[in-house]
Amino acid sequence: MEFIEELRSLKEQVKFDKRIENVQDFDNMVIAGMGGSGICGKIFQELYSKKPVITLDDYHTPEFVSDNTLFIGISYSGNTEETISAINEAKSKGARIITISAGGALEKMGYEHISIPLGLQPRSAGGYMLVPLLNSFGMMDEGIIERTYALLDELDRENSRCMAHAKRIATGKKIPVIFGASPYRNVAMKWKNQFNENAKVIAYANSFPELNHNDTMALAQTYRKKNLYFFAFGSDYERIEQRIQVTKEITDTNFRIIKPKGKSTVEKLFYLIHYGDYISYHLAGIRGINPTDVSIIEELKRRLH
Amino acid sequence: MEFIEELRSLKEQVKFDKRIENVQDFDNMVIAGMGGSGICGKIFQELYSKKPVITLDDYHTPEFVSDNTLFIGISYSGNTEETISAINEAKSKGARIITISAGGALEKMGYEHISIPLGLQPRSAGGYMLVPLLNSFGMMDEGIIERTYALLDELDRENSRCMAHAKRIATGKKIPVIFGASPYRNVAMKWKNQFNENAKVIAYANSFPELNHNDTMALAQTYRKKNLYFFAFGSDYERIEQRIQVTKEITDTNFRIIKPKGKSTVEKLFYLIHYGDYISYHLAGIRGINPTDVSIIEELKRRLH
Repeated sequence: MEFIEELRSLKEQVKFDKRIENVQDFDNMVIAGMGGSGICGKIFQELYSKKPVITLDDYHTPEFVSDNTLFIGISYSGNTEETISAINEAKSKGARIITISAGGALEKMGYEHISIPLGLQPRSAGGYMLVPLLNSFGMMDEGIIERTYALLDELDRENSRCMAHAKRIATGKKIPVIFGASPYRNVAMKWKNQFNENAKVIAYANSFPELNHNDTMALAQTYRKKNLYFFAFGSDYERIEQRIQVTKEITDTNFRIIKPKGKSTVEKLFYLIHYGDYISYHLAGIRGINPTDVSIIEELKRRLH
Repeated sequence: MEFIEELRSLKEQVKFDKRIENVQDFDNMVIAGMGGSGICGKIFQELYSKKPVITLDDYHTPEFVSDNTLFIGISYSGNTEETISAINEAKSKGARIITISAGGALEKMGYEHISIPLGLQPRSAGGYMLVPLLNSFGMMDEGIIERTYALLDELDRENSRCMAHAKRIATGKKIPVIFGASPYRNVAMKWKNQFNENAKVIAYANSFPELNHNDTMALAQTYRKKNLYFFAFGSDYERIEQRIQVTKEITDTNFRIIKPKGKSTVEKLFYLIHYGDYISYHLAGIRGINPTDVSIIEELKRRLH
């Protein structure tokens, strides 16, 4: 499948009708995953706050995990060593374990499993890994799915602004800096990851209001500011919008504001994700880089074995 | 007080003998704080895993907060609007609330309060905000305090390597990139914040093994790599050490390895923090920047009122 087709499959992915049953009977929740799989847990953690949710991107499971814990291990390949290690530890602590993967070792472990379609790059399969979580906790409905589909389809047909950003980034060999705001802080992180993996460009993410306590001081006086390209996600919160405007003015920084389209949080979430997909995809194209190439990461895995 | 004296007070701060009493009787814990105060909660969260700990760096408190929650609000000034907002929400949900500040509104709110000394920059008072948390959960003892004091004192007397890093960063106008590893991922973030606030330089942090799933791909092919200056914290975990070495080789990246000294996790933690303090301090000096100047952040606060 061409990479552009993978990206465009996102609108079909939001229809993915899988869910975890009986999710109410636990005290806390842990979601383990790395990279393109792990970011789905992190995005969910920001949206769901009825129970404490801890996300893991490492080998080890916290001590508190017990039979009162719902433990979800996500790995697109099903073979991520950190995630497998964390699942094994969670098992020994008696947690209820759910696995989400497209085959691999995770599927064979014998836990309650959500099987997702094969054949994509993990970072293109975010819908398949995120939607079952959103379904399970009542955050999706027919209207949301339809409207999200329409928004993503619109972006698939018309994304010339994404191309314009990519061109300016490429021309100046700029480092993308993405400033998010709740509940889309981890979407800013996903953009950073997409710049890394698709366009093979270093990138950096932080979020309002936290960055007003550190980055802001640097923005006014740092060297290399001309080498950076700043995005800020527009927010529904007036106080955050004020912070963006004031920060822009007093640090004299050109933030490109990306205002999410959509009615619900979920629509805005997927719109923002897809907007970033296109910028990184176009940037790869302009740089003459193959966006599907992850040979270095594969070489690393070989060398570690 | 001169800024260098503030930094050097860290060794005295580790002796700070305050604690929260009766911390066992709760299901979960939330620690709210921004910037130099917030990072203390995040560092603690990585070290303590017997209960779920959620950290907040925003206005709002999660829905799950209840009378089974220990809620700790930290603000050096005591006047941080995000933290005050989060505390007020936690109060309405019935949480047990602890405040930690050097005066300000937090002290006057009337909750159980830990009062810390006035007169420092929040980012220089990390010991005062972190040690009460470590004390409360049994992570400090006389031996640890003594050995930590000795390590920090050693760095106060001899930090020429920190100066050498600062010189190379300044000469090349480089962007510091700090790669941490558990349990010091948030120490990498604290270094980033210190570069921002002390040296007024943009900086970026991520951690092993997560960065092997995204940044690694960029490191091999990104532009501007010569404009970046890479640190990696040495790890006690063999698998992480392997990852650092292999990543260095296959991406041809010059990581400066910072190996923490000390026997216990707490000693290593403070050693790493102080090492970063000195690099950012020296970088400010070389750049002719006043490290205590936070006029832009203060201007922002004025403009928001």
